[in-house]
Amino acid sequence: MEETMQELREKDRRAATLSHAVAVLGWDQETYMPASAIDERSEQLELLQTMLHEAYTDPRIGELLARLGATDENPRGDQSLAEQDQALVRHVHRWYTRRTKLPADLVAAMARETSLGQSIWARARQESDFSQFAPQLEKLVDLTKQVAECLGYEEHPYDALLDEYEPWMKTSQVRRVFGQLQEDLRTMVQRIVDRPQVDDAFLSEDFAEDKQEAFCRRVLRDIGFDVNRGRMDVSAHPFTTSLGRDDVRITTRYSRRNPTSALFGTIHEAGHALYELGFGDAYRGSSLADGTSLGIHESQSRLWENMIGRSRPFWSYYYPLLQNAFPERLTGISADDFYRAVNKVQPSFIRVEADEVTYGLHIVLRFNLELALVNGDIRVADLPDAWMQTSRELLGISPTTDAEGVLQDIHWSMGGIGYFPTYALGNLYAAQFYHALRSAIPDLDEQLARGELSPVLDWLRSKVHWHGSSLTATELVQRVTGEDLNPQYFIAYLDEKYRDVYGY
Amino acid sequence: MEETMQELREKDRRAATLSHAVAVLGWDQETYMPASAIDERSEQLELLQTMLHEAYTDPRIGELLARLGATDENPRGDQSLAEQDQALVRHVHRWYTRRTKLPADLVAAMARETSLGQSIWARARQESDFSQFAPQLEKLVDLTKQVAECLGYEEHPYDALLDEYEPWMKTSQVRRVFGQLQEDLRTMVQRIVDRPQVDDAFLSEDFAEDKQEAFCRRVLRDIGFDVNRGRMDVSAHPFTTSLGRDDVRITTRYSRRNPTSALFGTIHEAGHALYELGFGDAYRGSSLADGTSLGIHESQSRLWENMIGRSRPFWSYYYPLLQNAFPERLTGISADDFYRAVNKVQPSFIRVEADEVTYGLHIVLRFNLELALVNGDIRVADLPDAWMQTSRELLGISPTTDAEGVLQDIHWSMGGIGYFPTYALGNLYAAQFYHALRSAIPDLDEQLARGELSPVLDWLRSKVHWHGSSLTATELVQRVTGEDLNPQYFIAYLDEKYRDVYGY
Repeated sequence: MEETMQELREKDRRAATLSHAVAVLGWDQETYMPASAIDERSEQLELLQTMLHEAYTDPRIGELLARLGATDENPRGDQSLAEQDQALVRHVHRWYTRRTKLPADLVAAMARETSLGQSIWARARQESDFSQFAPQLEKLVDLTKQVAECLGYEEHPYDALLDEYEPWMKTSQVRRVFGQLQEDLRTMVQRIVDRPQVDDAFLSEDFAEDKQEAFCRRVLRDIGFDVNRGRMDVSAHPFTTSLGRDDVRITTRYSRRNPTSALFGTIHEAGHALYELGFGDAYRGSSLADGTSLGIHESQSRLWENMIGRSRPFWSYYYPLLQNAFPERLTGISADDFYRAVNKVQPSFIRVEADEVTYGLHIVLRFNLELALVNGDIRVADLPDAWMQTSRELLGISPTTDAEGVLQDIHWSMGGIGYFPTYALGNLYAAQFYHALRSAIPDLDEQLARGELSPVLDWLRSKVHWHGSSLTATELVQRVTGEDLNPQYFIAYLDEKYRDVYGY
Repeated sequence: MEETMQELREKDRRAATLSHAVAVLGWDQETYMPASAIDERSEQLELLQTMLHEAYTDPRIGELLARLGATDENPRGDQSLAEQDQALVRHVHRWYTRRTKLPADLVAAMARETSLGQSIWARARQESDFSQFAPQLEKLVDLTKQVAECLGYEEHPYDALLDEYEPWMKTSQVRRVFGQLQEDLRTMVQRIVDRPQVDDAFLSEDFAEDKQEAFCRRVLRDIGFDVNRGRMDVSAHPFTTSLGRDDVRITTRYSRRNPTSALFGTIHEAGHALYELGFGDAYRGSSLADGTSLGIHESQSRLWENMIGRSRPFWSYYYPLLQNAFPERLTGISADDFYRAVNKVQPSFIRVEADEVTYGLHIVLRFNLELALVNGDIRVADLPDAWMQTSRELLGISPTTDAEGVLQDIHWSMGGIGYFPTYALGNLYAAQFYHALRSAIPDLDEQLARGELSPVLDWLRSKVHWHGSSLTATELVQRVTGEDLNPQYFIAYLDEKYRDVYGY
């Protein structure tokens, strides 16, 4: 048995190592690669991705899993295996099964049509014309449904799609959670828009980029991001990527007229990176050294960005430093003014610019439309109208252009149906973890106000990060908070915060 | 036949693409990789190198080559093949044959012992104690002899080693050329050391690194290095690497007290890079888009660095710009003072710091010792004494420590016996090409003095770069200059230049 297990570990390690090599090429492409290299880089990545797919679908892995007793009903394999080995068997069984269920021609068709889809989408968005993108999206929805059928599901085809991003999560649970969330958020938004709006005009003035960068690097260091195990560079779209367990890199971008973009973007990506840097030593070189779900990953970025980074105690420490970096911009603006400005709530069209309160409604909108598409309740051609109608219902406003509506996100052009819910789940997980964190550290606010951030990282590292993919999201939430995912923590967190900010 | 040829092209393209992916990981390791990532990066590279070895030794390639009629006697294959296809068949036949001749356990032993060898060498050099390195070097020499036997040779085992770096070149030819070179260089050095020395003390003052960089980037641009197809970054040891035909990157390093290090280092690496960027369009994606030998590669870096970059007309244009960048350092220093300072000749111990004249003698020294080692004429234990004795004969001085003598270069610790001659061959090829270039452009000096560098690049590109590996070094030299390698061009170049600099 140990020999079989060891061979599985080696197969898994090989795939993990190759995936990190792919990440090196991807990172370089987005940061330092000269413009003319794009065609060759695409060819290099295609070759390595093919090799990675071969490593992931090596039939020998199937034999090893069978020998270790792993089945769909019993994915952890033989009970005599050590705890960590069972976790690995379950994890490998999951990715091996999903990948081998898809026929090669379907995988190839998805690769081809999503590659095409992204360029068609980019042009359609630029020209704000959904009709250009609709035929391709129809193809992608059709392919996606085929993927769901191949993968299989018990209750709903969307389960099979969601499972790619949020393993083991079911559509019914998301529906239940989002139903409750939607009501509470709409109530809260209504209360807020009835109150006088906060003033954030000073955040649109000119903030020198080099000083933004220096401040971001200071915060990054204080948060506990170790530059011996990672880097921060600039790219068009901020991201986090793991080139290894000891090489996690983030990117940001600086905008002179919008300093909060780099600042909160940096903290957000740092949250992702700290998760990747925190996996247990025992998981080194294995695919268990990976985030257990996108929702849990997002919980780490959101907890740092919003619960810590947009909190009053955080800015009571950092605001004087920021003021010192930009005296010509921030003199006369108090820490309270700043705190309120970076927590301004206002329904808007674009998801990535949305505040903490309305953000979830953007996700509910997409989730509802994705479900309707997969169910066949609406046709692709109906999407723009459905978008506007749902937007009005949820956010009270609706966009007048496709670019500001149905075409704003890249995800569908990449075949990523099932991805969006993880963003909102991330906020819910974050709030539930944050509640547990505050219970564990009663004087957290005082510590934050003294600029002491390491207790937060220490707690997250030992409670959340350490486990990697050895626990599922559900198991992790149970282990850390003692209960299942409960959206009330998020609602309570928002209510306490925005009651204060807006005095409703 | 075309179908077979097409399959060979695809196999070759796959290997070339994978080798570029490996180069991405290597470049990142030397430039931006965080320190803690080194172990994982080594594992990633080992995996990709193994895959690359598999791609290079795919038995199917052997079948295709046989079907195309390629043999040791007739490496270009069937005469009915197009010219370019014959060139590819010869090139693939060469690398396939060399790689498949080595048994796997010998390749593994070399990988293991050279990896070990480098760390043992590094420590031995640090402590200037050859005896620490000697046992490992004995192993490496023994393995290298085994490699030579496996590869086979007609006249001398060193032929098989030399061929790795300078394909098709024979030891007898190097011996003949170096014999003549050695006599002429010793005579020239003797004449120079009898003359008053030039003053270069001002080059050891403090030159701000950011201004050095700005100047280097200016020269790099003028030389014709296109930043859409490459980059320049900083690394501990300058190098050039190809991540693709449209992605060639160089590195440099800035030293406050030695501005000529970055300046001539940048021009040197740019020379390598321009070669890699100049391969013909028809060779894109094939292994023919590669330097045809290390000697030819070095000819391109040396031609730019020394024949152009250390010439009087070059500095008559650039010196005022340099003076303008460093007025506090260079006021009162004339262009002629500067020109003479950067062409100072003085026998010294360290090869990489040697001037144009004594450099070749450093190489002759190593070549003689390598031959003696491979012949069994001296034992590893005798190397330090042999080094000192040969150094005194050739350079008139001999080091008193191992660090300044036999331990100064990394090459032997990497199993690189056969590599050194290519450095000197590079100078010889460069001078022979330069002679042809001057004949083709009679007013070259006037153009250089006006800062017009593009005629040099245009000529090199069309005459030298374009061919990639489709011509052997010997064929290329014949094609470009109308005769075989002839060291008299280098001697004549040096004599004309240093007669002027030193007035002998």
